Amino acid sequence: MEDRRIKKQIAFIMEVDKIKQIFRQNYIMDNSRRENDAEHSWHLALMAMILREYAKNDDLDILKVIKMVIIHDLVEIDAGDTFAFDKKKNADKREREEKAAKRIFGLLPKDQGEEMIELWHEFESMKSDEAKFAASLDRLQPLINNYKTEAAGWKNHVITKKDIEKRNRHTSESAPELWKYIEKIIEEMIEKGYII
Amino acid sequence: MEDRRIKKQIAFIMEVDKIKQIFRQNYIMDNSRRENDAEHSWHLALMAMILREYAKNDDLDILKVIKMVIIHDLVEIDAGDTFAFDKKKNADKREREEKAAKRIFGLLPKDQGEEMIELWHEFESMKSDEAKFAASLDRLQPLINNYKTEAAGWKNHVITKKDIEKRNRHTSESAPELWKYIEKIIEEMIEKGYII
Repeated sequence: MEDRRIKKQIAFIMEVDKIKQIFRQNYIMDNSRRENDAEHSWHLALMAMILREYAKNDDLDILKVIKMVIIHDLVEIDAGDTFAFDKKKNADKREREEKAAKRIFGLLPKDQGEEMIELWHEFESMKSDEAKFAASLDRLQPLINNYKTEAAGWKNHVITKKDIEKRNRHTSESAPELWKYIEKIIEEMIEKGYII
Repeated sequence: MEDRRIKKQIAFIMEVDKIKQIFRQNYIMDNSRRENDAEHSWHLALMAMILREYAKNDDLDILKVIKMVIIHDLVEIDAGDTFAFDKKKNADKREREEKAAKRIFGLLPKDQGEEMIELWHEFESMKSDEAKFAASLDRLQPLINNYKTEAAGWKNHVITKKDIEKRNRHTSESAPELWKYIEKIIEEMIEKGYII
């Protein structure tokens, strides 16, 4: 074992603990407090395991999907959480997050850091089937949270059916059966007045 | 799609949100508050990705390891967190957790529920290489947390070198190079007075 290698890996493992203090807009489902990125990422990994059968591509590499969702929000340690529907903050999101990725994944040994950045770029570009499925879960989870919490995460915002459909529509391609279910949730949330 | 199937899966995904309110003995690394099971499980999944190269078995099924760590603490939703060094509570831990597994995984469609219980049993019995590696991570993560927080998680307990070594020693088998690193951390924690 190269001693410096494991030291870098442990330093990274320690640094990313900060993600537990990055709070999102949406609430945990008992509505008691906002959810943080570590909890959100854990939930996505579990959802990938349980909902994998709905991916259109039968040969989907589910290990890659799970790795993606585990690391997808690490950049927010430096760049902060950017609310999906905040147009202003989303303008320079990319730049802030690229810088963060360079610093945070740069703590790892070179080979692993590059692998992680590549994986994060694949997730962000939403082109591969794995990235599309991961993105579907990343959209569905806060939708379920808001369904359970009377839209607590949206209380300072006006969310329209168009916003939600735009953010979730790619699921109709990557996981059509799941999309049918999501459509039903959206309809119910409109009836309840959570979405206008 | 069988509509009942996806409803069961989503009901499970909603129920397990409760793990975000199950707090552990150890603190998050900035020492501000206790860590919850969702955060802990997320951290283990990331550690599995980063530290996989130290597993003695080159053919280790890392997807299985990650699945194990993602679900390993779900039983605590009903059974609560049992502190590793609490002998009294550990006496009926098994029974409480088996009951919890039956209820929680029982929310899933039958085939998935059985698969998850089997995976959890494999983790608990610590016999397969995947279970041993998962257990190593599950021991190492709180050790690192306590290293970073001046042993905040142990402040109401007297932790001896023997306790720690007993809980971590199987790592010397499943990941010998990782064990060498752990031994150094333990020595440093003895010097600092966190462990007697």
